[in-house]
Amino acid sequence: MSAVDRVAEPAAEKAEPVLYRLLDSGVAVLTLNRPERMNSWGGGLARAFYQCIDRAEADPAVRVIVLTGNGRAFCAGADMGDLDTIGGAGASGGQDVTQLVGERHPHFVTELRKPLIAAINGACAGIGLTQALMCDVRFAAAGAKFTTAFSRRGLIAEYGISWILPRVVGWGAALDLLLSGRTFYAEEAKELGLVKDVVAVEDLLPRALAYAEDMARNCAPSSLAVMKRQMYRDAERNVHEASAEAEKLMHESMLRPDFIEGITAFFEKRPPSFPPLKEETP
Amino acid sequence: MSAVDRVAEPAAEKAEPVLYRLLDSGVAVLTLNRPERMNSWGGGLARAFYQCIDRAEADPAVRVIVLTGNGRAFCAGADMGDLDTIGGAGASGGQDVTQLVGERHPHFVTELRKPLIAAINGACAGIGLTQALMCDVRFAAAGAKFTTAFSRRGLIAEYGISWILPRVVGWGAALDLLLSGRTFYAEEAKELGLVKDVVAVEDLLPRALAYAEDMARNCAPSSLAVMKRQMYRDAERNVHEASAEAEKLMHESMLRPDFIEGITAFFEKRPPSFPPLKEETP
Amino acid sequence: MSAVDRVAEPAAEKAEPVLYRLLDSGVAVLTLNRPERMNSWGGGLARAFYQCIDRAEADPAVRVIVLTGNGRAFCAGADMGDLDTIGGAGASGGQDVTQLVGERHPHFVTELRKPLIAAINGACAGIGLTQALMCDVRFAAAGAKFTTAFSRRGLIAEYGISWILPRVVGWGAALDLLLSGRTFYAEEAKELGLVKDVVAVEDLLPRALAYAEDMARNCAPSSLAVMKRQMYRDAERNVHEASAEAEKLMHESMLRPDFIEGITAFFEKRPPSFPPLKEETP
Repeated sequence: MSAVDRVAEPAAEKAEPVLYRLLDSGVAVLTLNRPERMNSWGGGLARAFYQCIDRAEADPAVRVIVLTGNGRAFCAGADMGDLDTIGGAGASGGQDVTQLVGERHPHFVTELRKPLIAAINGACAGIGLTQALMCDVRFAAAGAKFTTAFSRRGLIAEYGISWILPRVVGWGAALDLLLSGRTFYAEEAKELGLVKDVVAVEDLLPRALAYAEDMARNCAPSSLAVMKRQMYRDAERNVHEASAEAEKLMHESMLRPDFIEGITAFFEKRPPSFPPLKEETP
Repeated sequence: MSAVDRVAEPAAEKAEPVLYRLLDSGVAVLTLNRPERMNSWGGGLARAFYQCIDRAEADPAVRVIVLTGNGRAFCAGADMGDLDTIGGAGASGGQDVTQLVGERHPHFVTELRKPLIAAINGACAGIGLTQALMCDVRFAAAGAKFTTAFSRRGLIAEYGISWILPRVVGWGAALDLLLSGRTFYAEEAKELGLVKDVVAVEDLLPRALAYAEDMARNCAPSSLAVMKRQMYRDAERNVHEASAEAEKLMHESMLRPDFIEGITAFFEKRPPSFPPLKEETP
Repeated sequence: MSAVDRVAEPAAEKAEPVLYRLLDSGVAVLTLNRPERMNSWGGGLARAFYQCIDRAEADPAVRVIVLTGNGRAFCAGADMGDLDTIGGAGASGGQDVTQLVGERHPHFVTELRKPLIAAINGACAGIGLTQALMCDVRFAAAGAKFTTAFSRRGLIAEYGISWILPRVVGWGAALDLLLSGRTFYAEEAKELGLVKDVVAVEDLLPRALAYAEDMARNCAPSSLAVMKRQMYRDAERNVHEASAEAEKLMHESMLRPDFIEGITAFFEKRPPSFPPLKEETP
């Protein structure tokens, strides 16, 4: 890195509310980048997040997406400055709430064809927690602070957290965390199954990247796209429908070159070489 | 406490099958009070329980309800004396079963607007376990004994336990516990996510009360009512419906004074002062 | 065991792709028996498995079924020899896939009236893992290797694993295991709730048999049949429907002699003596 880069980069990073970086491994790293506001969720940050997600989803070079935060927080919830404004707006009709949270619901990321891995570097609260729960896999830094927070602000279970949280941690823990709005830490989050692993903060991004890069290298993008969709749709199906649909999808998968490559590589004991996700399939 | 109180109280306590005590903190404590019958579930105890729940739900001074048992058991299941009678009744038509379990199904408490916290002081079996699982959060005394018991009595998964148990502990553990009817202890219940925390029996009520009182003091009653309803309804919804409903509920919550108080208190770094739950909202 | 038996048995065992053994305790032990192919799933083994299951389900002397594997693996997934053939068939229409996996979907065992306990002695992958997850309770040998594997072969979440896995381990762990296709071990499987207990490989079958034999001895076959059905059906019901259905089933159970025997044995502090499952009930 040249001296110019070293000067230029922080300034550039400050300008963008979400940073986008594509690694050679096929992993796109998105970094929430309003550290001075604890990466709190607001119109500007939300819009930048949607743009970065759309870019990663559309780029064939991207196989897996990692989401993290810059500074001490992952995302400390809705921007209280905005919230204050909205409080007034709410009192007079609430018509500006989309200004606050952006025009998409957090669950839109469950409809991506690419896996989304959260690397929760610090405070993760309110809508920040909801968004993290809509990611597919979560790693957290030791000591990171979590809270649903809603009940302590006179709010409700926002944007699908009352749907996803019990499915991730079970009904007992979900009711505890949502009703009490209490603070809990990465270590308890791991115990509850809310995060996959907890590591020291300096090891967090390397750990999440190693996981994402293994997936980018060894898993067929077509398989990832189909299985992610199966998982979320089967939440509403019965086992008969789920298994019948799986049989259909299995037949389709066997017609793709990825399947031939997958078993050939397995027999030849070499890493597979899967093509990028095509626009039309699966 | 005067000497008269100390003499009078036990007698009074013996008379009522469920004790009702309202604390200044806004927590109502309900105590199953047939210790000589292990607080086993029968017509009299069930009716008293419904009355106490209705009273707590209707009283604006009550924000959170705690349920516990007097003596060695929380609730050891259906009253076997009654069961014996019912066995005969069952054989000749089963028309008296409601006599045994009372006229409500245990899941009626999931429709309360107020949180219900179980402090499981001892044996928790059969319908006692079902009722405990329909509470929102559970604490247990170290060594408390649990069992579904049904399969060992020629019975079936009663009153919705086959619905709630897998959602609390997962399908694998639920099938194990229901099919085998084996005994397990508070420590395993904690490991399975069936209870939130296990503490020494003498610390149990203080622990549950501290949790309930924090909730009564810091969480908006309107938020608790809405979120509890969201949780149980979202069990049957897909994520799109859940999130769309949440958006509507969020807008409504922003029109309530609780929201202004919640964020103002947060900015002023003071405890919030939320009004009691009104009859009409939310 | 005579010298003749000791010579004859291995040869006989080699002949059958699934071994069937009925114990005096009322437990039928099914052993996948193609150790030289890691008990991989293929037409012959699948058909033999269905036959053994049908036999155990139909025989009134059988109360509980245990499924295990011979050799180093439980079931290492689809037979790659067959898969290779199918790959070609798949490319030209996929019409022969049922040849590979047999004519039933793994979830057919959830519709048995008898409990099915898996004793996972070693490698458990792909469709082998799906079939294990459709069993009611799972024990595993220390160090046994698990993987979903699909994403690494260009395949998809086969035959209902995307339905059952999240219900057993929660959505977070399920997405991790399905998307990454990573290898994990019995110890992590236990932590995730995927298996009930992990024991040394030499203790595995004794442990699973002790569990199954306790169930065969002390649990009413009619209760087991009804409760198993309740559990899987309630996955699709709401709590009202589940509890209403349970009330109906409870009344029915009280008309069976098993109920009288269950409470009489309980009062008399002796083991119950339940009749075998009748064809018509429950």
